[in-house]
Amino acid sequence: MNTLCVSGGAVLGPDHEVERADVLVDRDEGTILEVGEGLNADAAETLDASGCVVIPGLVNAHTHVAMTLVRGYADDKPLDAWLREDIWPVEGAFEPADVEAGAELGVLEMIKSGTTAFADMYFHVDRIADVVERTGLRARLGHGVVTVGKDEAEARADLEESVEIAREFDGAGGGRIRSMVAPHSLTTVSEEYLREAFSAAREIGVPVHLHANETTDEVEPILEDWGMRPLEYARKLGLSAEDFLAHGVHVDDREIELLAESGTGVIHCPASNMKLASGMAPVEKLLEAGVTVGLGTDGAASNNDLDMFGEMRDAAMIGKLAADDASAVPADTVVRMATAEGADAVGLPGGRIQPGAAADLAVVDFEAPHLTPRHDVVSHLAYAARGSDVRHTVCDGTVLMRDRDVQVLDQAAVRERASRRAGEAIARAHE
Amino acid sequence: MNTLCVSGGAVLGPDHEVERADVLVDRDEGTILEVGEGLNADAAETLDASGCVVIPGLVNAHTHVAMTLVRGYADDKPLDAWLREDIWPVEGAFEPADVEAGAELGVLEMIKSGTTAFADMYFHVDRIADVVERTGLRARLGHGVVTVGKDEAEARADLEESVEIAREFDGAGGGRIRSMVAPHSLTTVSEEYLREAFSAAREIGVPVHLHANETTDEVEPILEDWGMRPLEYARKLGLSAEDFLAHGVHVDDREIELLAESGTGVIHCPASNMKLASGMAPVEKLLEAGVTVGLGTDGAASNNDLDMFGEMRDAAMIGKLAADDASAVPADTVVRMATAEGADAVGLPGGRIQPGAAADLAVVDFEAPHLTPRHDVVSHLAYAARGSDVRHTVCDGTVLMRDRDVQVLDQAAVRERASRRAGEAIARAHE
Ligand SMILES: [Zn+2]
Ligand SMILES: [Zn+2]
Repeated sequence: MNTLCVSGGAVLGPDHEVERADVLVDRDEGTILEVGEGLNADAAETLDASGCVVIPGLVNAHTHVAMTLVRGYADDKPLDAWLREDIWPVEGAFEPADVEAGAELGVLEMIKSGTTAFADMYFHVDRIADVVERTGLRARLGHGVVTVGKDEAEARADLEESVEIAREFDGAGGGRIRSMVAPHSLTTVSEEYLREAFSAAREIGVPVHLHANETTDEVEPILEDWGMRPLEYARKLGLSAEDFLAHGVHVDDREIELLAESGTGVIHCPASNMKLASGMAPVEKLLEAGVTVGLGTDGAASNNDLDMFGEMRDAAMIGKLAADDASAVPADTVVRMATAEGADAVGLPGGRIQPGAAADLAVVDFEAPHLTPRHDVVSHLAYAARGSDVRHTVCDGTVLMRDRDVQVLDQAAVRERASRRAGEAIARAHE
Repeated sequence: MNTLCVSGGAVLGPDHEVERADVLVDRDEGTILEVGEGLNADAAETLDASGCVVIPGLVNAHTHVAMTLVRGYADDKPLDAWLREDIWPVEGAFEPADVEAGAELGVLEMIKSGTTAFADMYFHVDRIADVVERTGLRARLGHGVVTVGKDEAEARADLEESVEIAREFDGAGGGRIRSMVAPHSLTTVSEEYLREAFSAAREIGVPVHLHANETTDEVEPILEDWGMRPLEYARKLGLSAEDFLAHGVHVDDREIELLAESGTGVIHCPASNMKLASGMAPVEKLLEAGVTVGLGTDGAASNNDLDMFGEMRDAAMIGKLAADDASAVPADTVVRMATAEGADAVGLPGGRIQPGAAADLAVVDFEAPHLTPRHDVVSHLAYAARGSDVRHTVCDGTVLMRDRDVQVLDQAAVRERASRRAGEAIARAHE
């Protein structure tokens, strides 16, 4: 059989038990065959994991990957001014090849930091899909729709593009790519188009993904116009178990209950919520209610990296502040959010190291001063490890990074192209 | 002349201008001679900084470096239970050689992540001083005093040890080591001993450093016993311009004014404040009032690393949340807090790259996907860089790390010793 063996490491199991074991992978099927001792005898390919901890590939459950082009371009501004004055004008100048260059840079960064799956809402999605297809990651992709402020023809075209993209790309890349219909938010897409988005998604059999309750500006207008909270409104429009929303910062107890009832996943983006001063999501309450909570970096402009280790740490940190309780949102929970819970929330395989599961793995080098002593592996993953500690990355049974060397992209070329294209897009935006 | 040239990089100047330049260092004096083009002709030693940004060595202005031994040992617990059940029993079992092993591990981690100076409050300080002396960092060291809950003889002995240590080690290590008198906090040291601490410090000519206003438990008892806020109480006891306090989370407007009047520095420890759910320090208000604010990691058990890049990012992030304003505590400010402001707050040289300043430098490799594109170097330092991006570290004109290889400690031996000693100390604590 065509196998890969990740050998000699400690393995983080689905219940977060940590045991010395090899992981044997079927490279053709992209699945884990076996976890145990002495499995590397007949493997076609091996990855040395000695001194390392093998964890499920991390799931970045909400991002806009091409926004790496505007990383650090305009920081320390309020959300509204930042979007209107800086981000939207530059994004408006993005050509398809810019989005492709930004996606390559983001994918490179994610592979280097152990992320094997991501959910992305953007435009020129065909170019993002192309990058995902070529580089071997797993992704759920959608075209972000905005209808407010557009005439009817433009609005309809935007929605139709999102539906078309969802139809075209679901199952692409040998099944590694799944799709979604992605209305940007409950306030930037009008009711009629939101209804259509939900019904189209149901018809295609894909989720709806949208931003919700990120700031009070996403709550007040809906309260005023509809006399109900945003998630009550979303529920009436069709929000269901397959769907997932980003942020959920300003949700009240009734909305938390609604999310638990509907089975809708919430993607917590702690760094973005802090950097844009959006507020603190009630993660402990969401988890207590039984809501599936994933983690996302959001775009690189509001983070400013795509490192899911940082996101785990931020989630634990802000989760304690929000709950006013140092025992809230513990290490074990954030590791789950970045792996199994995230995968479940966005409806992608992965997130667990066990026979039959997707062979999406990150091998983390623990032989470092900041990961010493090794009292508690899960604590180190949450609080002390960083993306740069990842030594190998495997997705769908394929080695994407070996010994910190990304196999599927030319780092220097990707960096050069992204830098050049970012500079040109910004110049065009200011013309 | 015996010079070192850091050549081919971009240099972060004292006003945060970034220019291509070499930095020429007098290795004998440990100072910067010149910053400019083409200085490497006659240098005795060179460090290649191409593709890098040369920044002042980072200043970890509040830590307990030997606590690396309990990194990840007991997470996700409330401060009081965590101290009483986990941390204090293990610290109680620490032998001098344990503190030395923990200090070596922490110093190794700091050198690797570009920190060149730190302020440390702990016990068995002679062992910490020995590590600092051997490894070439700069430090302000003090023995932490606790008198509450002790009989008079014990209490006096503890204070006297702190005074003795301050006297003995000020100016040690060729001047790289300075000292301080370090009453643990306003609630764990009684009034009489606090007065003595301040007067002894004044006599020796060193600062007092203490924890203050970290939690409401450090505010309420003083309000009750003395009818005034903690920093009013501290001011009456002698808190002055040379002194610096850690945390300052729960300070009111009157206390902020007092700090500005007295010129006392505040060391903000954002990660520790989040992890222990202590609260959000009003950093924007402190800065607006003109208070000198440095940054500290606090001990590794409440962080869980000693990476000052993480601390910069955390300070910007939580600063925005605390101020409810995305423009608060911007990138430029946190970089200053981690360099010049931190050095000033603890009264150590360094923090600025200019002729005559201490030759304490970190050379940060910007040729990485997560630092691409390079729209804004200061933004990247605050939001996207991490300790692992540091390529060379220089302190007092001596290269402590060259090409990510620490020159002054044997990494494998330090890690092995720290792990073994941590395990043994924990076992003793549970006997
Ligand atoms: Zn987003
Ligand atoms: Zn402390």
